Amino acid sequence: MATIDDISVSPDELRDRIERLGAVGERPAGGLVRFLYDDAWCAAADLVERWMRQAGLQTRRDAVGNVFGRLPGTTETERTILTGSHIDTVRGGGKYDGALGIVGGIAALAVLKERMGRPRRSLEVVAICEEEGSRIAGNLFGSRGMLGLTSAAETARLTDPDGVSVVDMMTRIGLDPAAVPDAARRDVDHFVELHIEQGPVLDGTGTQIGVVTGIAGMRHQLVTVCGQPDHAGATPMDRRRDALQGAARMAVMIDELARGTGEPTVATVGQMQAWPGSVNTVAERVTFSLDLRHPSDPVRLELLSEIEGRCRALAEHHGLAVEIVDRWEEQAAQMDAGLQQVLADTADDSGFSWSALSSGAAHDSQLWARHVPTSMIFVPSVGGRSHCAVEYTPLEDCVRGATLLARVLYRMAY
Amino acid sequence: MATIDDISVSPDELRDRIERLGAVGERPAGGLVRFLYDDAWCAAADLVERWMRQAGLQTRRDAVGNVFGRLPGTTETERTILTGSHIDTVRGGGKYDGALGIVGGIAALAVLKERMGRPRRSLEVVAICEEEGSRIAGNLFGSRGMLGLTSAAETARLTDPDGVSVVDMMTRIGLDPAAVPDAARRDVDHFVELHIEQGPVLDGTGTQIGVVTGIAGMRHQLVTVCGQPDHAGATPMDRRRDALQGAARMAVMIDELARGTGEPTVATVGQMQAWPGSVNTVAERVTFSLDLRHPSDPVRLELLSEIEGRCRALAEHHGLAVEIVDRWEEQAAQMDAGLQQVLADTADDSGFSWSALSSGAAHDSQLWARHVPTSMIFVPSVGGRSHCAVEYTPLEDCVRGATLLARVLYRMAY
Repeated sequence: MATIDDISVSPDELRDRIERLGAVGERPAGGLVRFLYDDAWCAAADLVERWMRQAGLQTRRDAVGNVFGRLPGTTETERTILTGSHIDTVRGGGKYDGALGIVGGIAALAVLKERMGRPRRSLEVVAICEEEGSRIAGNLFGSRGMLGLTSAAETARLTDPDGVSVVDMMTRIGLDPAAVPDAARRDVDHFVELHIEQGPVLDGTGTQIGVVTGIAGMRHQLVTVCGQPDHAGATPMDRRRDALQGAARMAVMIDELARGTGEPTVATVGQMQAWPGSVNTVAERVTFSLDLRHPSDPVRLELLSEIEGRCRALAEHHGLAVEIVDRWEEQAAQMDAGLQQVLADTADDSGFSWSALSSGAAHDSQLWARHVPTSMIFVPSVGGRSHCAVEYTPLEDCVRGATLLARVLYRMAY
Repeated sequence: MATIDDISVSPDELRDRIERLGAVGERPAGGLVRFLYDDAWCAAADLVERWMRQAGLQTRRDAVGNVFGRLPGTTETERTILTGSHIDTVRGGGKYDGALGIVGGIAALAVLKERMGRPRRSLEVVAICEEEGSRIAGNLFGSRGMLGLTSAAETARLTDPDGVSVVDMMTRIGLDPAAVPDAARRDVDHFVELHIEQGPVLDGTGTQIGVVTGIAGMRHQLVTVCGQPDHAGATPMDRRRDALQGAARMAVMIDELARGTGEPTVATVGQMQAWPGSVNTVAERVTFSLDLRHPSDPVRLELLSEIEGRCRALAEHHGLAVEIVDRWEEQAAQMDAGLQQVLADTADDSGFSWSALSSGAAHDSQLWARHVPTSMIFVPSVGGRSHCAVEYTPLEDCVRGATLLARVLYRMAY
């Protein structure tokens, strides 16, 4: 009789595919740019679809451009267990974030088909079209499509920062923006995502596998500070209403508040831009981004309220106006307890060291968890580095993660 | 016998020309963009040359595009008294900065020619091609050209932030970059510049005329802070090397240091940009500008050294690297004492209230003062506002300034 020890993902093929997918969208200066529906994205989608076909999976693309590879079940053919991750990247991102969950998922289904034959329940791997919010603000466009959360009307309003509409992006590559609701599916029983940790915990403790307990909620805001443009030489310091000085004090305040609150609070100001942006003009207007996360939604909302109050107080003190606009929000999510147990047991049975941990990074699983039982497998990120060209996970960790995924899917579907 | 009371600039024509020149390069959102050698700049140069011809002046353009209108003297024809100011603007600038010194200079020479005939010494008004450093970093390209401080080789190295070379800009509009040294002239005995104050002193004290005693020295620097790009959700606060947080703390430190030092120190951080500039990535690199000015060069150099030391200490404390690059420096300049006396006496004789004051803003006069006896006339800026669309000087103040300029030139040249 077959055991999970018979199920192991091939290192050579996994390495080859990580490298090949990681070359699609690579920039000369290093780092990937693979944004929703751009040319690199199209090439990547074609590539993973080819690998799905090579694995003997039935391939299909849905209305938003998610790419599926299906291993149909023998008895419960109407219901599906879905694995996968996103194919898009941040600007200058690495080759593991998202990609590992796709190539690992294909490898898992390939080894299951080859060694174990057809499953009882249908299995699918998906390359999700968009998660990062790099081109369209924090949209989880692929998972929202599959979960029936995206309407054609809403899609028609989306644009990238250059003003290119999602409608035009989709039309350019042969997708019908009016058909977006057709991406919805009601047959998914479970979502299981393999992903790099993107943080330093597993690498720092020498742990091989992370069994994710939950994902921090987050809000993205744009804070705009308005003052008065004045001549940098002729305006005495005490006559200034300097938007950049106000914004800088707010950024420092946010950082100190997050540090003072302690782990696991994280707050990040990643963007800051000044207008008119002249060396010799006091800044009239500065916009900066805030990314605030915490695993407890009530704590997070309290922190946001505290930050808003302190921004308003700083603005008033410096004679400035401040406007805070919410750009994106994800509530905290809990991973399914039963699936966490399956992951933990299978890791134990496989002799892999593991620990339970919460994710500070957002994932497609965050949205899935609100609709179907969902689980995530983390593998270590060296130095916790992510969203950059030096993002790295050793091959043996990638293989271990994909093998655990295959073994877990085996226990769920066979 | 003619007296200075016979010399008065016409309000109607001055208003009309301020408005017409102030429409060249106006942007729909308000404010002017008239950058060296761009289309608006070309249109403005053509316009003021036409006005010079209408005033009966001999017009000429030099190798860098300065536009001259000459009223030749009768006896000392080899030597020239020069007035004028710059025709370029900052991004989103107002319609008085620079422009008033040109239209006021043309009006002054026009009324002198009409009422007083030909002068003994030659008079010229110049529209200086570039002063602001908006397109090419802090270059004073026009005055440097006239003073023989610009070589063809140096010109060949200049580019704007988009990488367009000054050589290409000049060639596009029919100027020969190799001929730049030909702009040098050795015949200028005095430079007299009419300009708005761009600060709040005259307006705040209800004084009609400022007799400038000197101009603050300044340095422009670009400060680049380098940290580590990390995932905004997965990286604990105490593991971060956040370039934006370092830069924000440096900006606040600079502001507090300038305030603590007291007037007349001014320090401005007008630009700040973050890379990769993602909402959900800790900033790897931030560059910001510093503009520091003080009328005493030794005090200014001491402040710059203090700022550099504190930036390095902040960088070290936060695990960051910092690089400070000097972009431009102007030494403090003293206006000619004798010419200050002529200005003050002529203002008294005209019944104009005046006060002596130092300029925090840089001007072409700063460079001229190091080579020939130079003086500046300031008129009030309402609210001290400048380098913005609401920059405003009432017509009667503009007329008063141009009339004083005409009367001073009369005393110097007739």
